[in-house]
Amino acid sequence: MYLIDGKAVAAQMKKEISEEVLDIKKAGGKIPHLAAVLVGHDGGSETYVANKVQTCEEVGFKSSLIRYEEDVTEEELLACVDSLNKDADIDGFIVQLPLPNHISEQKIIEAIDYRKDVDGFHPINVGRMSIGLPCFVSATPAGILELLKRYEIATKGKHCVVLGRSNIVGKPLAMLMMQKAYPGDCTVTVCHSRSENLKEMCCHADILIVALGVPEFLKADMVKDGAVVIDVGTTRMPSSTTKSGYKLTGDVKFDEVSPKCSYITPVPGGVGPMTILSLMRNTLLAGKKSIFG
Amino acid sequence: MYLIDGKAVAAQMKKEISEEVLDIKKAGGKIPHLAAVLVGHDGGSETYVANKVQTCEEVGFKSSLIRYEEDVTEEELLACVDSLNKDADIDGFIVQLPLPNHISEQKIIEAIDYRKDVDGFHPINVGRMSIGLPCFVSATPAGILELLKRYEIATKGKHCVVLGRSNIVGKPLAMLMMQKAYPGDCTVTVCHSRSENLKEMCCHADILIVALGVPEFLKADMVKDGAVVIDVGTTRMPSSTTKSGYKLTGDVKFDEVSPKCSYITPVPGGVGPMTILSLMRNTLLAGKKSIFG
Repeated sequence: MYLIDGKAVAAQMKKEISEEVLDIKKAGGKIPHLAAVLVGHDGGSETYVANKVQTCEEVGFKSSLIRYEEDVTEEELLACVDSLNKDADIDGFIVQLPLPNHISEQKIIEAIDYRKDVDGFHPINVGRMSIGLPCFVSATPAGILELLKRYEIATKGKHCVVLGRSNIVGKPLAMLMMQKAYPGDCTVTVCHSRSENLKEMCCHADILIVALGVPEFLKADMVKDGAVVIDVGTTRMPSSTTKSGYKLTGDVKFDEVSPKCSYITPVPGGVGPMTILSLMRNTLLAGKKSIFG
Repeated sequence: MYLIDGKAVAAQMKKEISEEVLDIKKAGGKIPHLAAVLVGHDGGSETYVANKVQTCEEVGFKSSLIRYEEDVTEEELLACVDSLNKDADIDGFIVQLPLPNHISEQKIIEAIDYRKDVDGFHPINVGRMSIGLPCFVSATPAGILELLKRYEIATKGKHCVVLGRSNIVGKPLAMLMMQKAYPGDCTVTVCHSRSENLKEMCCHADILIVALGVPEFLKADMVKDGAVVIDVGTTRMPSSTTKSGYKLTGDVKFDEVSPKCSYITPVPGGVGPMTILSLMRNTLLAGKKSIFG
């Protein structure tokens, strides 16, 4: 069994991106610039955005943080999106989700210029991904594909089972894994809460991607010998043994599943660390105008 | 075994749309107006477009046919798309594919205003469908969903296997059948030419949608007893017994598969007749501004 070390791959990606930024600087090119919009003071969102801003600094990007209080109106936020769309120095930006209930997340997402939509949530990017056209791929699916690629895991013709059909993980992963590409070219099955035959499907999987958000859902008897298991779950469970008082728990019962696997991602340290680096790479691509010219 | 009679359902839909157009006329509303752009003189394209125009007349729509010779430039075609986008009387339009090699189909499709894209090929419509937002769904997938609905076929939790991953049939069907909706809520598997375990997958399917374009590909030993089989194949095979000299042949070996099925679509007379009616319904929705306001 090989452990897929997302932390090490993310560190390697950080190094590669930093080097490319240095090259751009040396050549007198434009430094990629990411803006993040943060509404309110949700603890999780604060942490995510702070990490994104910090990683920008570490790789040498410019970054801007735009903050609004919880009571910002939809109109104000749309005006902010509009000004970021028009700001020639901003290559890409994100609006950290979730947003307060009085604001339509979908409306905000659709207002973002798709050429700056480094989160890959705009319908144009989602549609282009499905069709197989160049686009911004959202961070978690992109990170998982990068792990498969860096560990040279065979995918062509294999059966990939995705547990979960969310718009930001399950569905895009399914679309990506069925494309005529590497990683990809898989037979793809998507299971979810309504699936009658979920366990049977899991037992058939060569590659199992678990994104249900149910801690330790996947047990040893649901996994074929030699399967590749990718754990996207990150539920905060109370813990008395950590300083923070919680422990990140994956969707896979790691201790009993891992001995059966050829490759498996741990939680933490698997898929998680890849997410921010995928966003950084999208920002680099945006800065270089590699996707939409 | 029940035969799914696409011809009868299409006739019923035609009646329903005609009645709605009459109601619109009575109320003094705007008559839906579909335009079709046809390049060159390909026999298949000529027939398809002629059928679309004729069906428009039968349901009471306005229709316009715009013809170009094979040597039209991409710029001329883009200018035509632009003028149709701007023409307030045109509610929806299609550019009949395929186009000559010197014209980028993707460029033409992306130039169409997505609010008039009644073929549902624009990335925005594809992306919105994946996310589960209101959109124009392309004709063949929409027609298949309509058949499942009219025959009240149970889909929730069932295993739907889609053979084929084309952008206009396989991929959109997979996205639709996994949505939290009826028809939908299925465990969905997409198989294709690279799938190692295609036959095994087929044998597990409650609903089998075959869109490979390989005549009589699906044999009896690939189908579970009681399965629902939807045959999207329409290959023209030479025939000495028909006036036209050819016979439409499906992807399913009908004679041996049908006795095992709970429901099955024939070829011809199954999925085929639904396609134009799905386009008509999209045009009606465009005329009523039901989707994009």
